[in-house]
Amino acid sequence: MLQDKVLIREVGPRDGLQNEKQMIRTEDKVAWINQLSKTGLSYIEVTSFVNPKWIPALADCLDVAKQIEREPGVTYAALVPNQRGLEGALEADIDEVSVFMSASDTHNRKNINKSMDATFPVLKEVVQQAKSAGKSVRGYVSTVFGCPYEGRVSIDQVVHTSEKLMEMGIDELSLGDTIGVATPNQIEEVLLALKGIIPIESLALHVHDTRGTALANVYQAYQLGVRRFDGAVGGLGGCPYAPGAAGNVATEDMLYLFNGLGVETGVSLEHLVDSAEFIHQKVGRPLPSHNLQARLASDCKEGV
Amino acid sequence: MLQDKVLIREVGPRDGLQNEKQMIRTEDKVAWINQLSKTGLSYIEVTSFVNPKWIPALADCLDVAKQIEREPGVTYAALVPNQRGLEGALEADIDEVSVFMSASDTHNRKNINKSMDATFPVLKEVVQQAKSAGKSVRGYVSTVFGCPYEGRVSIDQVVHTSEKLMEMGIDELSLGDTIGVATPNQIEEVLLALKGIIPIESLALHVHDTRGTALANVYQAYQLGVRRFDGAVGGLGGCPYAPGAAGNVATEDMLYLFNGLGVETGVSLEHLVDSAEFIHQKVGRPLPSHNLQARLASDCKEGV
Repeated sequence: MLQDKVLIREVGPRDGLQNEKQMIRTEDKVAWINQLSKTGLSYIEVTSFVNPKWIPALADCLDVAKQIEREPGVTYAALVPNQRGLEGALEADIDEVSVFMSASDTHNRKNINKSMDATFPVLKEVVQQAKSAGKSVRGYVSTVFGCPYEGRVSIDQVVHTSEKLMEMGIDELSLGDTIGVATPNQIEEVLLALKGIIPIESLALHVHDTRGTALANVYQAYQLGVRRFDGAVGGLGGCPYAPGAAGNVATEDMLYLFNGLGVETGVSLEHLVDSAEFIHQKVGRPLPSHNLQARLASDCKEGV
Repeated sequence: MLQDKVLIREVGPRDGLQNEKQMIRTEDKVAWINQLSKTGLSYIEVTSFVNPKWIPALADCLDVAKQIEREPGVTYAALVPNQRGLEGALEADIDEVSVFMSASDTHNRKNINKSMDATFPVLKEVVQQAKSAGKSVRGYVSTVFGCPYEGRVSIDQVVHTSEKLMEMGIDELSLGDTIGVATPNQIEEVLLALKGIIPIESLALHVHDTRGTALANVYQAYQLGVRRFDGAVGGLGGCPYAPGAAGNVATEDMLYLFNGLGVETGVSLEHLVDSAEFIHQKVGRPLPSHNLQARLASDCKEGV
């Protein structure tokens, strides 16, 4: 039987900040993550151990991971593209590492300069070593619902990529609508294709809100049994290798939806919007989060 | 059996513009409506025949209604709060008039300075006269899912208000989430309560996107049989008497959803985004439409 409780994976400090042009100071990132740790979130992806040549915004990954205060009950995760990244994550004693690849070959090549086929063995080794070090591992498949270069991505490719990642022994698989093109019928299509192959308890949905369909897709996935959802506070983010892609769905908007539905998340909406307001001031640009904007409308009188 | 085709009610020139601080020139409104008429839309609410003291942005209602070019097959509608408004609408030979009231008494008083009970007879007379003049009539119920002053609105009040409007002989009833607080469970709750009382073919959903749930609510209503949806190009709008309320759902975002679902609308997404871009330049502020923003991201390379 499906549990009603939903697990929120906060990816703002990684997926949200990796693409920001405004450089955020390490101490501000640390203060923000410490704030997020007190919202009731049980999972925060705090950074990416990636070559700073590729993602300069996260060049302070080791400092961030070492300086944050670890709240009991919160899993602190980090993205690792390769073995060198894993070494950094292990040095910082990160709780869980994430590996990633695209379901479309062109996007994968643009993203990490490797074909999909050449990526599998690299990830396999990273996963094995992470597991040997006693870490749980999360896998991201990006461009599941569409690729900025190839357009539609075939379901076969999505299933193949997902299976290969699961075979490596990853604990959770996050299906990414990297460029925010999905509509709810596609969510259903992909979940049906993965049925019987990957337990739905191991799946997470990772949506971006480029075309306004993010929460419709989250709602659809929830109805079909998905209980793990990625979001970024403030609606921060966008993929640096997917031009034009808008931010992740705002975690607080997703929370508003789940609160309305009466679904337990364990997270405080008010505290989450506080932390959206905090990072909003640091990035120095308007953020797309609806619940943040509703709060910022100073004369806001919702009463609901 | 339900038809699959969805009817889009474009309310941008009225609900969208009524709250804009930037005064839009009459000729620009007319040019914009003429552009909207060529997108494939079959329904455009072009203005509101309301006292300019209350809505100065629509003081040119008569000029707009007279100067637009009427495209065959398009219904041109206007809001009329009272008999005087109806006279203006008839003078301009508007095809359909809309009357409105709130499901919450406080909002109704703030909005039109009358109790709900005192509003019914006024509307009844307007509806009768409009019908006598051969016009179809649309009714709006606002604050169906929440009121900025009273909070939750009881389902009984929603049903009562809806029934009273239907008894007057209106042809279509638009259920408004005026302040954008609804989640899909509320959509279901209200539709279930109206089942057997009002034919679903007569219902429209009118959502604002204050908390990001707009398209999730539209999708829910569609799944439950609603086939008429209000939107405002660009995501313009907000209710001047509902402080903090964000804009209407962007018509083009709704269209993107329906296109993805394979639902026929008869409207061109590309042309709709053109018209969003046009009005975006006139209002001189960033508009919340996701599909407009995706286009404006100049290096956008979705390929989907």
